[in-house]
Order: sequence, then C-alpha cells, then structure tokens
Amino acid sequence: MMHLSAFRQTIRAFGSGSKKSLSSQVFRNRQIRLASRPVGLPTAANFSITEEDVSLPRGEPSMVVKTTYLSLDPAMRGWMREGRSYIAPVGINEVMRATGTGEVVASSSSVFKVGDIISGMVNAQEYSVFSDTKSRNTGLWKINTDIGTELQWLSAMGMPGMTAYFGLMEIGKPVRGQTLVVSSAAGAVGQIVGQLGKIKGMKVVGIAGGAEKCAFVCKEFGFDSCIDYKQPLKSFYSDFKKHCPKGVDIYFDNVGGEILDCVLTRLNYQARIIICGAISQYNAEGGNTPGPKNYLSLLVNRARMEGLVVFDYSKQYPVAIAEISQWLAAGKMKVLTDVVTGPIDKFPDTLNMLFSGQNNGKLLLKIESKK
Amino acid sequence: MMHLSAFRQTIRAFGSGSKKSLSSQVFRNRQIRLASRPVGLPTAANFSITEEDVSLPRGEPSMVVKTTYLSLDPAMRGWMREGRSYIAPVGINEVMRATGTGEVVASSSSVFKVGDIISGMVNAQEYSVFSDTKSRNTGLWKINTDIGTELQWLSAMGMPGMTAYFGLMEIGKPVRGQTLVVSSAAGAVGQIVGQLGKIKGMKVVGIAGGAEKCAFVCKEFGFDSCIDYKQPLKSFYSDFKKHCPKGVDIYFDNVGGEILDCVLTRLNYQARIIICGAISQYNAEGGNTPGPKNYLSLLVNRARMEGLVVFDYSKQYPVAIAEISQWLAAGKMKVLTDVVTGPIDKFPDTLNMLFSGQNNGKLLLKIESKK
Repeated sequence: MMHLSAFRQTIRAFGSGSKKSLSSQVFRNRQIRLASRPVGLPTAANFSITEEDVSLPRGEPSMVVKTTYLSLDPAMRGWMREGRSYIAPVGINEVMRATGTGEVVASSSSVFKVGDIISGMVNAQEYSVFSDTKSRNTGLWKINTDIGTELQWLSAMGMPGMTAYFGLMEIGKPVRGQTLVVSSAAGAVGQIVGQLGKIKGMKVVGIAGGAEKCAFVCKEFGFDSCIDYKQPLKSFYSDFKKHCPKGVDIYFDNVGGEILDCVLTRLNYQARIIICGAISQYNAEGGNTPGPKNYLSLLVNRARMEGLVVFDYSKQYPVAIAEISQWLAAGKMKVLTDVVTGPIDKFPDTLNMLFSGQNNGKLLLKIESKK
Repeated sequence: MMHLSAFRQTIRAFGSGSKKSLSSQVFRNRQIRLASRPVGLPTAANFSITEEDVSLPRGEPSMVVKTTYLSLDPAMRGWMREGRSYIAPVGINEVMRATGTGEVVASSSSVFKVGDIISGMVNAQEYSVFSDTKSRNTGLWKINTDIGTELQWLSAMGMPGMTAYFGLMEIGKPVRGQTLVVSSAAGAVGQIVGQLGKIKGMKVVGIAGGAEKCAFVCKEFGFDSCIDYKQPLKSFYSDFKKHCPKGVDIYFDNVGGEILDCVLTRLNYQARIIICGAISQYNAEGGNTPGPKNYLSLLVNRARMEGLVVFDYSKQYPVAIAEISQWLAAGKMKVLTDVVTGPIDKFPDTLNMLFSGQNNGKLLLKIESKK
C-alpha cells in the first residue's frame, strides 16, 4: 500500500500552488503533421515537418512542456484513418497525436512548476502548451519518480501497462491453471500481459515473430512457451496444438487475422478473447480485411469476444499503477523498452518499425533537439 | 408463482410410481436415417428411410413413445456435420436427431404411464424407446397441459423459448429504452426474442425476408419495425440506419453473414451480440464461410460477442417456463407455429423449408402414420 499512497500524494500535488515561472521565453517548436492519409503502411510522405514559435500564453495559467520521450503505438495507425472510431481521427495538417513525457520549461500554472516531469498527450512535437484546464481534461499527470522511472511510467505504469492490466483482469478474468495465449508477446502490451498471467498462476503461451524473439520472451518474461508465427500456416496450426494441448481459456489478441482464426479453433468452454488490436489488419488497403472465419467457435464453446479501450478504466489507473509498481520493485515484473534517440524528424521511420515488427518491447523515441 | 408450482408438480410426478402397462405389443417403426453428409443444402438423398419392429424391452423399466410432433431446427444442419462441436454429430446410418413430443403407448416405467404426453429427444422416427435411465439422462419430461398446450410446450415453453429467454436475459441483459435487433424475426426463436424485448421495454427492430413477413412481425408480435433483408445490400444498409437511428445495443443473431456485418457498423457503446446461430452460413460448401469483417467494431465500441447454447441453462428452465406460461396466459406473448402434417417421409422436405425461409414461425412436422 506504500506505493498507492505515494501515487495519491502525486495526485494531491495537483492541487497545491507551486512556484510560477512567468517566463516570456520563446521556444522554436518543430512539429510532425499529418500531410495525407496513408494507404497501407504509413510512410514519411504522409507527414510534413513544420516549425513555429511557442511561448507561455497570457491569461489562463499554463505551461510549456519540452518533450523528452514520444511513445510509438499501434493505435496510431487507427488515428490516421478517417471515420467513426473511439476517438476523432487526426485531421490533415494537424500535429500527429502522440503520448509521451516531457519536462515543464515555463509555467504560470497553479498545478505544475518548472522542472516537473509530466506524462500525457504531448503530441509529435518538441514543445507543447497546456492550460490548466487542458491538462486536466486530457489526462496529463506529474510523474512520481519515487515509485518508478520515467521509462517505467511510459511502459508498465503507462498506457501499455494499463491496457495489459485491465484487459486481462476485467475482460479476461484470469483463473489459476488455465491457459493464456498472448500475441505480439514481445511487444509493449504483450510482455506485460504474459507476466501478469504468470503472477496469476496461469500457463502462458506467447506468439511472436521468429525463433529469437520467442526464446527471448520465455527467458526474459517467464512465458512458459512461445510460438513463432513466421512459419507456414499449416505448421503454425500444428505447433499451436502442441503448445496448447489443453486448449485456450484466454486469448489476448493484438494482431487479428490468421492467428485469431487459428486460436478460435482451439477455444475451451467459456473462453474469453480480448480484442485489443489487430496490427496485422491496420494497414490493409481498401478496407478489405477478412473477418475471423471461425467465429462460430464462440457459439460452440459459449465463448466471448470483447473489445478493450483502456481509457474506459482511467478512474482505476491509480490502483493498477500501485500494484504494478510493487511488482516491479519486487522483481516480479520487468519491462523492456526499445529507445530510438534522435531529432523529431525520426518520428515517421520509428513508427514504421512497429508495423514491420522490428522493435523489441515498448518502442520510444527520445527527442534530441536538432543542433 | 402459480405456474412455477404447477411446473414443479410436473417435476415431482417423475418420482411417483404410476400404473404400468406391461404390454408385449410390437410397433412397426419407420425411421429417417442420415445416409450421407450433405454438401451445401441437405436433400432427400442425404437420408434413408428404414423400418424395424420395436416393443417394450424386458429388464429395466422402460416405455415406448409414439411421436406426435417433430421439431425442425436450424441446429440440425450442424448435427449433420462432422467434427468437434457442442454435441456429437449424428453418425452415418444413425436415426436423425430431433426433439419433439409423443404419447406413451406402452410402459413398464416407474415414471411415465400410458397416455402421458412427453417432450424430449424422440428423434426422426415414429416410435422411440426410453429406459427410465435414458429418459432421465436425455432431458425428457412430461408435458403439463394445465399450463400450456402441446404446441406451446414445443415453442415458447420449449427449446425456442428457452433459447430466446436465456440468450436475451443472460447474455443480452435488456435495458429499458435501448434498441434490440433480432434476425430471423419471424422464426421460432426470433419471434419470442422480440416479444421478450417489448416486455422488457426495449425498442425492438426485426430483420426478416420480404415485406409480407416484415409487416406480419410488427402486427402479430408487436415489433416496433422490421427490415426486409431481401433487397440490395446497399439499400439494406441505408434502411438499417433509418430503422435504428440510435444505433444497436443488443443484437440477437440467428443468421451471421452480411447482416451481422451490417449490424457491426451500427453498434453502440458496450453493445452485446448474442451468437445464437448463423443459418446463412450453415450450408456453405467447403467451409469457405467469410467471417464478420467488421468485427473490430467490437474494439471501437467496447462491445461483446458471445455464443449461446441453450442446454447450459437447463437447470433454470423451470423458472423461465413458469414466467413465459404466465405471459402466454395473460396475452402478453403469443407463438406462431407452422405445422406440416404428413408421414415421417416428409421430414427431409420439411427440413428444407427452414433453410429456404419458407416457414412462418416454429416449424413442426405432425406425424401421421402411413396407411
């Protein structure tokens, strides 16, 4: 409970007046904007780089944040697409949406002071400006480095951790001894799902691309086994059967496509499928993504397939963060981050590492200002 | 509660010794057997008609039941298919599985006496023999005609009613004022789902084939509106939007295919889809059924898709039957049955009426002995 109370102190700190820096400094802000909607994989041509000056606005208490890390997430592909979704798409010529961390470099805020490290929707730019109202409304918070490092706050204690935690606990409902299968096992969310599954006493089977990644997932994160999806579909099916001899009780799906179809053929009675993402389908052209053709296995096995959007659980984040920070401190859980360092111009190429599966663990871009 | 107690008396009657008929009478039994597994729609060629003599076995207390009605159900298509399912497939040359009702014509049973009307797995034959053990294990029960007619026990108070009731109540979880969509709205299950939805204060929209069926569903069963699926897909989509301006909260799916895909595009936040069947896909050749390509709408809307097999709720049937029998008696619910009368030879053609959508309401074959 030590960690929970530490987190609560962080929350309470929001309310305390802090020393204000009434700087009139001007910052040169380089920004990545969405230039066009990608067809298939996003490329550098879908983005433009612009520059503008930012400074502390007069009037409402505000702050300027200098970006430290940007988080690269599969969900970004969805945000670039037009149409109805759980969140409005990024508009053409708008700064690309991105979460990340940063340091407060100028402040008239009644909540944040210069030097504070914050986490939130800083977007793909070097500097961002938040009024106190905006920082309240966009879920921005001060990072408490007493209970976790900045990288931990961006991974296990950030969106990937919250996604793993609430998907598995609230939709999956883990049961000791049952079998949990996780796709994108080496990814930001997958690695945490697997470790949570082990903490809950489940048999955990990962799915990842390549023998090396599979071995890594077992060695580093304690998965019981891991199936290589980079093999012919037929042998993937027989491998899958070998790794899950007792069938599948929970499937945490980050990929969709043929892997989802294979899992559907091995469901147990009252199995739960958490639809967290479908990275294999995000970049399909013309919306011709095939559906899971074995979905009637849900009927046969009285199974359930349910969608997860982590924002729904935001009120419960403090409890999850407190629990995870304890597991991290106790060595029961670890996170692997893959940090690319460079100027903000590297954003499009770094994003593409996600979709080609080149990253190992949570992918981050550490922003270095251009000289 | 009057009806619940009446039902319980029926259950208790199972235990009381009743007058035994130690008949040695021989009955000539005509049977429909599965001759081959259908590819696509089942035809008469997939069945054979055989004859054998049956009589009361010596030894264990038993009875002979003369079939009155056979129930024709979409699930039968699944039972004819090889492979893993919620119930073993019907073997080649086995009598085709079927539920129905019948009259006890010979008995050494300690439970059932001559003249009793029973309901259960009588199969596609004129006579069936049940030992007391078998009748206990296969869910056979005596019909209490004080609380419902034989036709009501085969529809609203039988499998279709139980399927509608537990699917809607346990998986759908109806909420007053929300929108419920039901496919196969004029069918055995659909008509009851819609009426239960109205009883629960929902806006109920049916989907059925043809303007006539649609009008019928609204007039007879009180659906708020009904969409004709026999129109070009594009106009079906725009019709759907008109009929469900506030989106869909519960979809009771009996058909799968393109209709399921359309509904997925109109889901509300935390919508529930009950996968009860997929009649549009049962007869697809070679297993090339497409999956629901818009399934990622589950993610966007945090929605749930869950399979239903009514047998899971068998212990709760008495409660549902009691409630439904009261609604029937009070005129809050009605059932429409479509009864074909003829010899057992009519079984294959009658079954095909289901898959071509020729029936209006619960389809039954009333068995007339061949002269």
